[in-house]
Amino acid sequence: MTIDEILRKVSTGEITPSAAKKQIQLNSIHEVQNIAKIDTGRSFRKGVPEIILAEGKSPDQVVKIAKNMFSTSGHVIISRTDKSHITAISKSFTKKYIRKNVLANTVVISNKKKQKVHGHVAIITAGTADIPVAEEAKVIVDEVGCKSTTYYDVGIAGIHRLFSSLSSVIQDDVDVIVAVAGREGAMPSIIAGMVDIPVIGVPTSIGYGYGDKGTAALMSMLQSCALGIATVNIDSGIAAGVLASIIVQKKSIK
Amino acid sequence: MTIDEILRKVSTGEITPSAAKKQIQLNSIHEVQNIAKIDTGRSFRKGVPEIILAEGKSPDQVVKIAKNMFSTSGHVIISRTDKSHITAISKSFTKKYIRKNVLANTVVISNKKKQKVHGHVAIITAGTADIPVAEEAKVIVDEVGCKSTTYYDVGIAGIHRLFSSLSSVIQDDVDVIVAVAGREGAMPSIIAGMVDIPVIGVPTSIGYGYGDKGTAALMSMLQSCALGIATVNIDSGIAAGVLASIIVQKKSIK
Amino acid sequence: MTIDEILRKVSTGEITPSAAKKQIQLNSIHEVQNIAKIDTGRSFRKGVPEIILAEGKSPDQVVKIAKNMFSTSGHVIISRTDKSHITAISKSFTKKYIRKNVLANTVVISNKKKQKVHGHVAIITAGTADIPVAEEAKVIVDEVGCKSTTYYDVGIAGIHRLFSSLSSVIQDDVDVIVAVAGREGAMPSIIAGMVDIPVIGVPTSIGYGYGDKGTAALMSMLQSCALGIATVNIDSGIAAGVLASIIVQKKSIK
Amino acid sequence: MTIDEILRKVSTGEITPSAAKKQIQLNSIHEVQNIAKIDTGRSFRKGVPEIILAEGKSPDQVVKIAKNMFSTSGHVIISRTDKSHITAISKSFTKKYIRKNVLANTVVISNKKKQKVHGHVAIITAGTADIPVAEEAKVIVDEVGCKSTTYYDVGIAGIHRLFSSLSSVIQDDVDVIVAVAGREGAMPSIIAGMVDIPVIGVPTSIGYGYGDKGTAALMSMLQSCALGIATVNIDSGIAAGVLASIIVQKKSIK
Amino acid sequence: MTIDEILRKVSTGEITPSAAKKQIQLNSIHEVQNIAKIDTGRSFRKGVPEIILAEGKSPDQVVKIAKNMFSTSGHVIISRTDKSHITAISKSFTKKYIRKNVLANTVVISNKKKQKVHGHVAIITAGTADIPVAEEAKVIVDEVGCKSTTYYDVGIAGIHRLFSSLSSVIQDDVDVIVAVAGREGAMPSIIAGMVDIPVIGVPTSIGYGYGDKGTAALMSMLQSCALGIATVNIDSGIAAGVLASIIVQKKSIK
Amino acid sequence: MTIDEILRKVSTGEITPSAAKKQIQLNSIHEVQNIAKIDTGRSFRKGVPEIILAEGKSPDQVVKIAKNMFSTSGHVIISRTDKSHITAISKSFTKKYIRKNVLANTVVISNKKKQKVHGHVAIITAGTADIPVAEEAKVIVDEVGCKSTTYYDVGIAGIHRLFSSLSSVIQDDVDVIVAVAGREGAMPSIIAGMVDIPVIGVPTSIGYGYGDKGTAALMSMLQSCALGIATVNIDSGIAAGVLASIIVQKKSIK
Amino acid sequence: MTIDEILRKVSTGEITPSAAKKQIQLNSIHEVQNIAKIDTGRSFRKGVPEIILAEGKSPDQVVKIAKNMFSTSGHVIISRTDKSHITAISKSFTKKYIRKNVLANTVVISNKKKQKVHGHVAIITAGTADIPVAEEAKVIVDEVGCKSTTYYDVGIAGIHRLFSSLSSVIQDDVDVIVAVAGREGAMPSIIAGMVDIPVIGVPTSIGYGYGDKGTAALMSMLQSCALGIATVNIDSGIAAGVLASIIVQKKSIK
Amino acid sequence: MTIDEILRKVSTGEITPSAAKKQIQLNSIHEVQNIAKIDTGRSFRKGVPEIILAEGKSPDQVVKIAKNMFSTSGHVIISRTDKSHITAISKSFTKKYIRKNVLANTVVISNKKKQKVHGHVAIITAGTADIPVAEEAKVIVDEVGCKSTTYYDVGIAGIHRLFSSLSSVIQDDVDVIVAVAGREGAMPSIIAGMVDIPVIGVPTSIGYGYGDKGTAALMSMLQSCALGIATVNIDSGIAAGVLASIIVQKKSIK
Repeated sequence: MTIDEILRKVSTGEITPSAAKKQIQLNSIHEVQNIAKIDTGRSFRKGVPEIILAEGKSPDQVVKIAKNMFSTSGHVIISRTDKSHITAISKSFTKKYIRKNVLANTVVISNKKKQKVHGHVAIITAGTADIPVAEEAKVIVDEVGCKSTTYYDVGIAGIHRLFSSLSSVIQDDVDVIVAVAGREGAMPSIIAGMVDIPVIGVPTSIGYGYGDKGTAALMSMLQSCALGIATVNIDSGIAAGVLASIIVQKKSIK
Repeated sequence: MTIDEILRKVSTGEITPSAAKKQIQLNSIHEVQNIAKIDTGRSFRKGVPEIILAEGKSPDQVVKIAKNMFSTSGHVIISRTDKSHITAISKSFTKKYIRKNVLANTVVISNKKKQKVHGHVAIITAGTADIPVAEEAKVIVDEVGCKSTTYYDVGIAGIHRLFSSLSSVIQDDVDVIVAVAGREGAMPSIIAGMVDIPVIGVPTSIGYGYGDKGTAALMSMLQSCALGIATVNIDSGIAAGVLASIIVQKKSIK
Repeated sequence: MTIDEILRKVSTGEITPSAAKKQIQLNSIHEVQNIAKIDTGRSFRKGVPEIILAEGKSPDQVVKIAKNMFSTSGHVIISRTDKSHITAISKSFTKKYIRKNVLANTVVISNKKKQKVHGHVAIITAGTADIPVAEEAKVIVDEVGCKSTTYYDVGIAGIHRLFSSLSSVIQDDVDVIVAVAGREGAMPSIIAGMVDIPVIGVPTSIGYGYGDKGTAALMSMLQSCALGIATVNIDSGIAAGVLASIIVQKKSIK
Repeated sequence: MTIDEILRKVSTGEITPSAAKKQIQLNSIHEVQNIAKIDTGRSFRKGVPEIILAEGKSPDQVVKIAKNMFSTSGHVIISRTDKSHITAISKSFTKKYIRKNVLANTVVISNKKKQKVHGHVAIITAGTADIPVAEEAKVIVDEVGCKSTTYYDVGIAGIHRLFSSLSSVIQDDVDVIVAVAGREGAMPSIIAGMVDIPVIGVPTSIGYGYGDKGTAALMSMLQSCALGIATVNIDSGIAAGVLASIIVQKKSIK
Repeated sequence: MTIDEILRKVSTGEITPSAAKKQIQLNSIHEVQNIAKIDTGRSFRKGVPEIILAEGKSPDQVVKIAKNMFSTSGHVIISRTDKSHITAISKSFTKKYIRKNVLANTVVISNKKKQKVHGHVAIITAGTADIPVAEEAKVIVDEVGCKSTTYYDVGIAGIHRLFSSLSSVIQDDVDVIVAVAGREGAMPSIIAGMVDIPVIGVPTSIGYGYGDKGTAALMSMLQSCALGIATVNIDSGIAAGVLASIIVQKKSIK
Repeated sequence: MTIDEILRKVSTGEITPSAAKKQIQLNSIHEVQNIAKIDTGRSFRKGVPEIILAEGKSPDQVVKIAKNMFSTSGHVIISRTDKSHITAISKSFTKKYIRKNVLANTVVISNKKKQKVHGHVAIITAGTADIPVAEEAKVIVDEVGCKSTTYYDVGIAGIHRLFSSLSSVIQDDVDVIVAVAGREGAMPSIIAGMVDIPVIGVPTSIGYGYGDKGTAALMSMLQSCALGIATVNIDSGIAAGVLASIIVQKKSIK
Repeated sequence: MTIDEILRKVSTGEITPSAAKKQIQLNSIHEVQNIAKIDTGRSFRKGVPEIILAEGKSPDQVVKIAKNMFSTSGHVIISRTDKSHITAISKSFTKKYIRKNVLANTVVISNKKKQKVHGHVAIITAGTADIPVAEEAKVIVDEVGCKSTTYYDVGIAGIHRLFSSLSSVIQDDVDVIVAVAGREGAMPSIIAGMVDIPVIGVPTSIGYGYGDKGTAALMSMLQSCALGIATVNIDSGIAAGVLASIIVQKKSIK
Repeated sequence: MTIDEILRKVSTGEITPSAAKKQIQLNSIHEVQNIAKIDTGRSFRKGVPEIILAEGKSPDQVVKIAKNMFSTSGHVIISRTDKSHITAISKSFTKKYIRKNVLANTVVISNKKKQKVHGHVAIITAGTADIPVAEEAKVIVDEVGCKSTTYYDVGIAGIHRLFSSLSSVIQDDVDVIVAVAGREGAMPSIIAGMVDIPVIGVPTSIGYGYGDKGTAALMSMLQSCALGIATVNIDSGIAAGVLASIIVQKKSIK
């Protein structure tokens, strides 16, 4: 029944306004439901596998969701896993499909062949403690089929390490930089002032006192005088990785 | 002694102003105390059983309070219990009166017969991690004698799950929706934009970084451009359940 | 083209995957666009007229949006107007269609006949300074066709004023209470502890020092030990009015 | 050397300005040091024993400080003790001098005879979880030699319990009320609206979500429309107890 | 009808449960309403005149409320007045009843004879900018009939000014100190460490940068290691004045 | 002098360590200064003209800085101008070089020929009040030589407007979406869930009460469950425009 | 009377304990008052003139305080003046004693001869809008008799300006750097990483959105990985100037 | 290739603009890389050993970094160590090179001979719980070769302890004071009001309720009316120690 038919029937008294209203609402919903049929996999549309945040879910819940997604797409990333999640996953999936990243606390389950590499993402951290967040981003970038190069701790031994890394970045025609930093979070600003490619700023919860839990770093990236920074939430390596992948794909597919 | 008598006696010197003042204050208090006599059970007036928050109380304290309330009303809900609370409760009440909900961490103690079901509340969560809060709401709704239908994880596999759920909600003539969501908490807004029944928004403390602990979700629900949302505090399934029950009862009793 | 056709054509090479992808995305969008046809008026679905927030918009912008909406629905509410908005509106609409509320800073434009009154909403404020927010709620409730009764300043002359108002509320079979309060915002809690109907708590930005701008009042309503409170955002008389209307309609239509 | 002598000597060149400056600074310090001689015990001046916050100190540190103070004043209160503190204290002081309060987590060490009771402080809590903070206040009040009466959980079974307690408070000529409450912290406001004696409001960290950790309760007490409330910091039973004692002493000594 | 009668009638079917419930609720309310009769004036119970916060109210509203209160009690204090309020008040009340305080922005309207002075309150400010808040407190204290002595700017010319003031305070047997300070708000702590009478700490919104708007001062007073401080909200001279009056009255009436 | 020479000279005593240290520091600085020579224009490296934030600067200061930059690069954007800035600029530059954008409060000064258009940026706002921020972004995008298409107010008349806009976005092969939204800021999340191109989320300071000043919108974008969002600071159309330009250039240059 | 005499007299009954207590307290105060005699001028002890914050004070109050201080020390700095303050000051002091700084909004009143210059302070700002705060610091440094060199806007045209300035700083043997920055406030960190002299970080309230009002800048300086930064409050040029002066004096006097 | 050569070659077509751009960017980077060669040790430039924050790093990571630094400079400080760090360090370095400080949780690894002592730093804490932070500062000061004197708990037994300490400080010609305080953090202000040397204020996270985690203390130091305070972040003994060392060195080297 179209909206016109419904309204006509109301006017002739064939159906009550109340029934008509209900019918109209159902119509809307049903049409939207058709979207479901084509949304068979976000990975189809976005090129990014499904991602499950294990934190706050029981091992059973994680496995159940992962199985469901894996059966559809054959490619699932599980982030922020603890030991109990990993044990449960290991028992539930064929070993050869499982790729663990201990630093990132992620598990990838995939029956896909390795894609041809396209695009290049540099991942830079200011300190050692920022590495787990950086590795989260790296896992996404790798699974999507981009090349990734990491430059860790470049803030630890003086600013020359950073410049040395940027030199490589430019020589290698990197497409996007993921810049991970805690404390005062100034590194992404300095990088963005030196390069002409997008810089994804990832504040980490490293730090203490006023501005701890990543607050100072997040503020620095948002307030930065240097332009060209795309900020994601504190400790969100996943969001950075996906954003980097989408920017890179854009370019490499064309 | 009425206020007039008291004042007259002061003017004639029968009592001192100080004694009069004390008498007047006692008068006020005593009259208010009469309220006590009719307030024998909030459940009589509100239709909702007494609820005890176990968190922050010792098992002994919880049992003592529960026994006291149970002897009066025969119907008590204990929320946010841990194992020690449950053990203590199990020892202190007849087994057949006890109904535990493991997901919600609640225990109901009741010697009431099941009420005839009236009204219908839909409880929808955005993610898996929101389920405990949703179940808290469901316990209340069930105990009050409403029908409840749950739609969990509707945000997890794309927006079509949500629309599919809303379709059922409208076909089933649901009276109120309890919408539970963490992270950016957008789901209640989307729902409120599609239906013409009250939507109770329950932010959960799921999330991380800037806006964590439910702050972003709470803000989203309060700032929502969609109208018709009744917000309760972060993680407060209890408050949502009671509010839903009161709205439903209103309608179903008349 | 259905999703099946598209996918078949890709498999046979009739269309490229890239073209297919684009087509699938367009399909989703087009189906959703059909919703537009039935969403001709939120007022049809919600029973609430369109509401325009004048604040932050130029008089020209407000008039343009209002005209557009009025031509469709014949019933528009404009909130948070200043003098320049009102002047512009007065020039642009037939005088007999305009209803101003000076206290609420709202203008209603309507060519509708007065609806038969159904349902009853009590609107209670703690202080004088809370009245503008309360009047915002009242405008909505009135336009939707509910009866409204106001009890203003009940906190100003001692708690007996509040109890006196609640007495009327119960005798009049009020369906919902809108309770408006600033400062420490305790009034909605006290009311919710005395009645068995939904209480919509509206914090106002009245107050100073720690907890000013409505923060203390909002927290009080969300943290309240008294259950049955539906909270809306600070100063949001509009949100309270719409929520009250939806709860009342539910009941009165059935 | 007085300041005049010093300045004269500088002018005559007997001492260098630099030496003079140092002398002047030492003069200031030395005079202030004389205060030390008369400040032999805060307890002499304030009537309140020395109080040691055990939290954040090692058992050894607590015992060392306590011994030092006890040797001077014979009367020490140790608050926020854990088991290791209590074990260490028990080993270090004569048993008959030790008074533990398990609810308040305090230990009193005293060789004083019980003072004649003077003054009367009522201590009221809204809920069970507020009792530890109330007991902290009670320990101080008791040690100072005031009478204390406790009314716990008066918020738990309806407002009549509160009025009933206030009735006793007035009949007993209580001098000060310590009102302890978490969540929305409305109880001190309600009390202050009913009595004409000072009400010391103690917010507790009981609560959850927006306004948790005592924030909502603290704001409520500071923002309260009811006048006559003296607020202390969240969970600070000690501060409340000392303030109550000082107010009471004032009156009872005269 | 008592609750017993009502319940009996329900059991015999004389009245419906619904009618009974309504009757019970009305009973509660009516009994509470009796309080109204004895609450003829907060000033009777508290000894403090009615206080109207002019801020946020129109001149008309202020005058209307003031007239109403004045007719009952003959003694009203209006705080935070601006010129328009003062003009309206001046037109509406007999000149001889009006007492303005320009520094405090208050207007007192009173037909009372000056009370015999009892009690003594010292009001101390750290700086010049704190004086308006201090004067608010002074107005209350004066109207209640206490003696007040002010020591302003004692922080401005070195710590000796403060000690000099405290010397007077002790010699004059002051009962309560109101200590008003902005910026880091340390003055009340220093005072509380030197005297054995209650110190009411009033943070002011003087300051800038981190901790501005009185936040640092409020925190300092609540966190103070010195005990015996009663804190009120930022800039709340009114609350400080009333609290001081109640503490003093207690003592002086006895 | 190289570092080796310096160190050798120190070892032979030709120069003191102190002089050597100074020399080493100067060396570092001088080498870095060479960067200056090649950094003659950020626009060369980034492809984005110099941008001057007029807010907080006097008209004289703005003109002076603008002249300096214009003489070097011939292309300057001045943002957040008020009338006094615009007057001063108009007097100081040849009229044909000036391009004002009244909605964005920007002035462009350029002697460049229009570049060939490359790349395509869609700029979408949720409401009317978000337009100034969106126009800021558009000015940048236009000046850089990208095509821009705007979809304003797509949130105002129901979700179908948004879908309709997204349909155009996909058909037009847009490269990046700038999504501007205030209040609860959900629009960028909904968009990011539907497209596979980067979405730059720009929170605006539109809103009120809890989560006002753009806080709720910023949190929503950072907390979003939808991945692929690059967030910039509140109201920062400039940052969004530059980021969009850099992402687009990347692609279109290759 | 010494404390010993007092205590002896109490023991013999010559004076009451109450009188003794009062005497002891007065003793303490009187001894402290002696400090007053030597504290004739903070400028004597600190080498820094008295500073009056005009903001929040009336012109009359400022003049009165200034006159009082000037008569004692002959050297007064008045900060944050507006036009009305300056007019009043100009009328009240001999013209030749007045030195205005329009950028810093300060007025110096001095009858001192110019001191011989000692020490050297570099004052560096990141942007134009930071200059007023920097000038505040400069006024102090100049009045104290240090040499000051300013490097303004070094952040505006690329990092080479900063390095160029640092080169001068090292060549000139500067003793202390005052580094003034708003927005993300990274400049002081970069400077502290390059030099071996103390860097005083002054965050300014320049910026917008998340981290505005100087919050981001303050956090950055406190969280900085670079060590050797002394932070003062937001916009506090005065505090920076005084701190710089004290550090420099230390060295130059010896 | 200089920038001129590059640009010339572009103009003659010898190289493409794209190649030129890349070359220019590499040029910048390479020049900056030369800094690396002279930045062989921050300790050379700053006189402060390398400092490793162990917190948030694994024992393996800490050892690896420490070894690397030690091989270069022979002098490393590791802060915020836990047992696992200390065990790993003990196994990896020659025992005689290791100096542990149990209170400060630091480990120093050094093969340097003890330097001749120069300069004098006083380290003062308000309470016992502030000692670990003070010891962190002391470790730095000691390793740099300054004399340090500690005055701990000076706030615990009355203000005379503080004055007594200050007396020593002045007699000993101390160069800098490190003042460590939690709670309301007033001590550094009081000290700065009494001395004419720089005072480094270190807020500690000691405290509870409103203003806990060092917030109140940090605000107090930044808002202080007393001038001459250099503030570092909460609990940052390291930052205080380095700042003190730099100020002292300045003076003692000259």
